[in-house]
Amino acid sequence: MKKTIILEKEEIELKNPILIEGLPGLGMVGRIAVKYLIRQFKARKFAELYSPHFAYYVLVDEKGNINLLKNEFYYWKNDLGENDLILLTGDSQAQTIEGQYEVADATIEFAKKKGVKLVITIGGYRKDVVGTPQVFVSATSPETLKKALDAGAISSPPGSPIVGAAGLLLGLAKFRGIEGICLLGETPGYIPDPRAAKSVLSILMGMLNLRLDLTDLDREIERIAQIEEQMRRIEEQRRMAEREIRKMEEEKISYIG
Amino acid sequence: MKKTIILEKEEIELKNPILIEGLPGLGMVGRIAVKYLIRQFKARKFAELYSPHFAYYVLVDEKGNINLLKNEFYYWKNDLGENDLILLTGDSQAQTIEGQYEVADATIEFAKKKGVKLVITIGGYRKDVVGTPQVFVSATSPETLKKALDAGAISSPPGSPIVGAAGLLLGLAKFRGIEGICLLGETPGYIPDPRAAKSVLSILMGMLNLRLDLTDLDREIERIAQIEEQMRRIEEQRRMAEREIRKMEEEKISYIG
Amino acid sequence: MKKTIILEKEEIELKNPILIEGLPGLGMVGRIAVKYLIRQFKARKFAELYSPHFAYYVLVDEKGNINLLKNEFYYWKNDLGENDLILLTGDSQAQTIEGQYEVADATIEFAKKKGVKLVITIGGYRKDVVGTPQVFVSATSPETLKKALDAGAISSPPGSPIVGAAGLLLGLAKFRGIEGICLLGETPGYIPDPRAAKSVLSILMGMLNLRLDLTDLDREIERIAQIEEQMRRIEEQRRMAEREIRKMEEEKISYIG
Amino acid sequence: MKKTIILEKEEIELKNPILIEGLPGLGMVGRIAVKYLIRQFKARKFAELYSPHFAYYVLVDEKGNINLLKNEFYYWKNDLGENDLILLTGDSQAQTIEGQYEVADATIEFAKKKGVKLVITIGGYRKDVVGTPQVFVSATSPETLKKALDAGAISSPPGSPIVGAAGLLLGLAKFRGIEGICLLGETPGYIPDPRAAKSVLSILMGMLNLRLDLTDLDREIERIAQIEEQMRRIEEQRRMAEREIRKMEEEKISYIG
Repeated sequence: MKKTIILEKEEIELKNPILIEGLPGLGMVGRIAVKYLIRQFKARKFAELYSPHFAYYVLVDEKGNINLLKNEFYYWKNDLGENDLILLTGDSQAQTIEGQYEVADATIEFAKKKGVKLVITIGGYRKDVVGTPQVFVSATSPETLKKALDAGAISSPPGSPIVGAAGLLLGLAKFRGIEGICLLGETPGYIPDPRAAKSVLSILMGMLNLRLDLTDLDREIERIAQIEEQMRRIEEQRRMAEREIRKMEEEKISYIG
Repeated sequence: MKKTIILEKEEIELKNPILIEGLPGLGMVGRIAVKYLIRQFKARKFAELYSPHFAYYVLVDEKGNINLLKNEFYYWKNDLGENDLILLTGDSQAQTIEGQYEVADATIEFAKKKGVKLVITIGGYRKDVVGTPQVFVSATSPETLKKALDAGAISSPPGSPIVGAAGLLLGLAKFRGIEGICLLGETPGYIPDPRAAKSVLSILMGMLNLRLDLTDLDREIERIAQIEEQMRRIEEQRRMAEREIRKMEEEKISYIG
Repeated sequence: MKKTIILEKEEIELKNPILIEGLPGLGMVGRIAVKYLIRQFKARKFAELYSPHFAYYVLVDEKGNINLLKNEFYYWKNDLGENDLILLTGDSQAQTIEGQYEVADATIEFAKKKGVKLVITIGGYRKDVVGTPQVFVSATSPETLKKALDAGAISSPPGSPIVGAAGLLLGLAKFRGIEGICLLGETPGYIPDPRAAKSVLSILMGMLNLRLDLTDLDREIERIAQIEEQMRRIEEQRRMAEREIRKMEEEKISYIG
Repeated sequence: MKKTIILEKEEIELKNPILIEGLPGLGMVGRIAVKYLIRQFKARKFAELYSPHFAYYVLVDEKGNINLLKNEFYYWKNDLGENDLILLTGDSQAQTIEGQYEVADATIEFAKKKGVKLVITIGGYRKDVVGTPQVFVSATSPETLKKALDAGAISSPPGSPIVGAAGLLLGLAKFRGIEGICLLGETPGYIPDPRAAKSVLSILMGMLNLRLDLTDLDREIERIAQIEEQMRRIEEQRRMAEREIRKMEEEKISYIG
């Protein structure tokens, strides 16, 4: 494999499709959100992207099977609305600068061929979160930006960089006459963060005028909260043990003294 | 985007144009100088350079809009003099060795097409500055060098490397039969340095026999000086507080003792 | 040399060949195993692979001769069985991400041309080993996986990555319609590990229904065990000497005291 | 500049030329040796090599002039002997793996076009040197190796890697049917080492049956020895000063005590 390729598994016709990207990144916000959309909408895979710029390993799945790292394109026919969806997620982002540009370029070219006029990318925004995570938005034009602001997102602070696929896809989309929106959910970023993904999905559903049951995501949030709580408890026990040991040592010293 | 491209927004005819480059680098000297020229001369943008060798992020501007990183070419019609100017600045330099060569090569090829016979690059020269920053000059030929020396610049110490676009553009220019001059303003380099930029601009105006009002730059210098002064005061307060604490601890010890 | 090339030294016709790869990697497990097969089967070299992605040095051999780093293809005509073997080993793996993909791609293309329908890659799996090293297996399909499981291998834990040639060759093989199996021998990984190689070879011989005398490998295991034993003894002596010195110092202190 | 290019300044016909390479590397042994040959033989430059794989800076020379980094080919017509010489030196080696292969490849292709049948590369071999530095040799064939051994060189230890141009040029030469020899002079390697260069030149002159006045090199050795002596003296003074200070502090403590 000398360069990035996209293999179409199924020839499909889509109605004014919107591309929504969620690849691995900070807090896995994008990937969690898009995978959730795929599951809830029962979206179908129709294309795979392979690239020599992905990490040079393969992953073993639950059945002991081996697969090249890849990105995957799913579609969902939105019979009640104006826009079908193309959902993009995957195992990896490109590992080099030039690779990032090549993969984003191949993706936008493919989107253009499929008739995409709007690309929405999802990612995380590193921040200590108080209460419900906020969603920061930026876009390729003021009109597009307004749609996200109207749905309750906050404008991204000027000068802030959007790193990787979530940023480059939009830069390259604009470059080829496609509109784009970036939604970043606040996240501490050190573990997978379904809460941030939920915040982003709420905004997204408002923007696209879609309904989505978030119950399963709540379950995931609960599970992660338990893991965090466990980690906190273990940490506290460790500290208590340390304090205990120090106290014993001090008493020993006083005793000797 | 597989390689560096330059998009011309406007077809223009220029009179013996000189290309002046100021991209991000040490103390932002080049960028500050060229941006100042653009503002003061009300230069107009006529071309943009995009490259897969730039950093793989996009920046959000003050209006929440997203843009690919780019370099920009402006022109200024110098009705009273012999040479129109092409002014080159931008968000980024290439991030890899091969990228640096490719971008510099594309730039010089474009300059050649536009009839450029002289390239001037601007950058910073790391040094503790006493008084007005000096300007070090080097060139692609003794005759060209002399022009800058006559205008008050000092010859760069032999063996010193000129890193990045400011150097490569001149090396590649010479390679294709274009003359080049490099002006480096003395700067400590750790914050944007309009004082160094001012020194360079003085030399440059002398060389090109141009007049330029530097008042606005003085205001910027004032602003940076205030920031520096503030940083100094904060640092001093921190030291005083530390001394105070140490004194109190010593007194406490004496008291206990 | 601008890209990876494979030079055929001998035109050969092979009967349903299986490609077995063992390049340098963790504990040198793959390389030891495949080199052992080459020696025992008296396999003959018929092709060499060169690549600008290998490390940029050459090695001096025992006779003072210099050679480019390379990978080597050997063949063995299995007159009694259904499958001839192609054995792949060498000095180096590619040193960059894109290089890893290019070299693996050239290798699989070559295998395809030679009529290979099954690729087996061998490597190490980092683990503290208790008793006989286990062999972890993964494959490109459940049917192929079953063959290795039936021969006594254990399924690789899901989510574990297979890094480098051992993984990419299989990912790319599957991609081109060739089946693949990866056998990883448990190894601490810090020195060449013929024990892990022996475990892998036992499974391999069971899978391929071949007989192989492992006596010479036992000798190598013995030799490595002696080296390890020596290292342990030196380490123990070092510790004893340290304890002795500390004791002397303490006595000296008591004496002075 | 998208790839490595060689520009011929002069069309020359050479008699069975031997290429001798000495680029920057450990102890600058190769560069010092080849530059010395160029000066002594009054060799003439006839070609320059430029590459986007060299470091991305330019150097300012003694006259304030700027030049792209380059490698240079000189020739010497050996009217009394059988072989003319091509002497290769320069500012830089390629900075990436793929660049090293590309530049070495372009060099060997050029050598082949010029009728070169033997390539000799010169470098340093890191070692604490006792007495006259020894010269380690390796070659692309036993016959070629013998020539250097007969001239007093020692066979390189097996398994030792020859890194960079000195190694790759020979690997690629052999690959294209050109013989090669590598001469490595023992050097501590931390400063330019004309002594190692002298050792290599003695062997080289013996091998090629040439005479060379080494007086100027002796002067350079003397100069470097003085610098080393100076560095030693400064270091000793520093230590004495430290001892003095410690003594004073101890006395002060005793006094206070």
